Amino acid sequence: MKIGIVGLGLIGGSLAIDFTALQQHTIIGISRRLSTCQQAIARGIVAAASPELSSLAAADVIFLCTPLEALEPTVKALVPYLSSTTILTDVGSVKGDVVRAIAPRWVNFVGGHPMAGTAEQGLDAAQSGLFVDRAYVLTPAASTPQSAIDTVATLVRSLRARVYQCDPDDHDRAVAWISHLPVIVSASLIAACMGEPDLSVLKLAQTFASSGFRDTSRVGGGNPELGLMMARYNQHELLRSLVSYRSHLDQMIQHIKSNHWQELEDTLAKTQSDRPKFL
Amino acid sequence: MKIGIVGLGLIGGSLAIDFTALQQHTIIGISRRLSTCQQAIARGIVAAASPELSSLAAADVIFLCTPLEALEPTVKALVPYLSSTTILTDVGSVKGDVVRAIAPRWVNFVGGHPMAGTAEQGLDAAQSGLFVDRAYVLTPAASTPQSAIDTVATLVRSLRARVYQCDPDDHDRAVAWISHLPVIVSASLIAACMGEPDLSVLKLAQTFASSGFRDTSRVGGGNPELGLMMARYNQHELLRSLVSYRSHLDQMIQHIKSNHWQELEDTLAKTQSDRPKFL
Repeated sequence: MKIGIVGLGLIGGSLAIDFTALQQHTIIGISRRLSTCQQAIARGIVAAASPELSSLAAADVIFLCTPLEALEPTVKALVPYLSSTTILTDVGSVKGDVVRAIAPRWVNFVGGHPMAGTAEQGLDAAQSGLFVDRAYVLTPAASTPQSAIDTVATLVRSLRARVYQCDPDDHDRAVAWISHLPVIVSASLIAACMGEPDLSVLKLAQTFASSGFRDTSRVGGGNPELGLMMARYNQHELLRSLVSYRSHLDQMIQHIKSNHWQELEDTLAKTQSDRPKFL
Repeated sequence: MKIGIVGLGLIGGSLAIDFTALQQHTIIGISRRLSTCQQAIARGIVAAASPELSSLAAADVIFLCTPLEALEPTVKALVPYLSSTTILTDVGSVKGDVVRAIAPRWVNFVGGHPMAGTAEQGLDAAQSGLFVDRAYVLTPAASTPQSAIDTVATLVRSLRARVYQCDPDDHDRAVAWISHLPVIVSASLIAACMGEPDLSVLKLAQTFASSGFRDTSRVGGGNPELGLMMARYNQHELLRSLVSYRSHLDQMIQHIKSNHWQELEDTLAKTQSDRPKFL
């Protein structure tokens, strides 16, 4: 199969590595940067790479691995070169708006979200096996042909990812809870700690911080551009989860303020027993 | 040195293991449960163990490793047996109220907090080297003799812990930020996610949750009794940190609600650059 990959960063590069390793496909990479194209060719993870979208004219399937804000312009620019049978799929972490924007432009579009990543970015961070045993969610529109869904699902399964399929808006609501809300919750923790006005206490806090703080603050100390993108593109669902979060937080505060120790213990016992449902 | 250890759980048991391994001390353990005493003797981590506080009459230093609420009653019960030179030190995770309660009863009392632990509890979880390279904070009162502080510091250093000394209330304020606040922040995340009313979305969230959710929710899914104790015994400082946290959270919500993307990105860029100060 001829597979096009637009955007040779962490995800696009890792897809290129894994598809090339299967020795069943021809991979054509696209990057705006010539140096990235040259690097991909030198690493042997693409058969060809260039900044020219026209080089994807013969592709059977194209993975759109650009940042979210570049998806729609990329599709607009790409469409004139494509045959009508070409299947497009993206790897964006938000799906509702993406599917609403692209599905009307290209019937053979299958929204996708590989739930894999590292703290690093760019082609240098691309690695083999990034998708193994990770969820890879497909979010077709009602109008998406089953054959297009099947083709993308088969390709993704060949990466040994766990393929799921759901409604684009349900996806966004679910990832708001478990991926986007934690970023804001965690970043607010860092910001609040840094707000300690007594600098000697702040210094003690920084000295004493260990695994509890490290884990709870990890995603809040991540790439700010990713945090910004998820807030912009999943604004509605993120706000919905934040409002609910704040009300649960307020209830905890109320328990502590009012010496409602039994209620606090009950709440903490429930979160202890509920957490494994997410693991 | 004759070292007494009251409470042979994770911390007390681990102290017993390490002090015994140094082959310079005689360790006498105290546990209310006879089976725990027998287990400690059978494991060879104490020279003797019994439920009788009177067996500590000849101890030079006694580590109080009971739950926080048992500290004051234990000291009351212990004092009649002690010679005035005996040094008492505790391992409680909150220090202001503990020092205020015990220092007036026993001049040679040195508040302490080994910042080490595991998810497990009890003597079964006790292990050698638990304190190596971990912070061990001493919080003497103004009235505490320097010789008592030095003796405890020397013992703790022999465990290869990093010894710090600070004011008990500063300790409590610092650990509220980096240890107690994260528990409530993290537990509220689990509680909020579980509040999703659409059960199919909740199921998706549980399926898609990965390292971001796992890390951010870890301490909120921990032992509810520990969470309760820290809230009860560090109530004032925890509430202070929670109020600040909520105002930082509200600011984030406001940025997202109002499309203040530059402000949000600036905030996230700052949390990214601030987090390493705690690691």
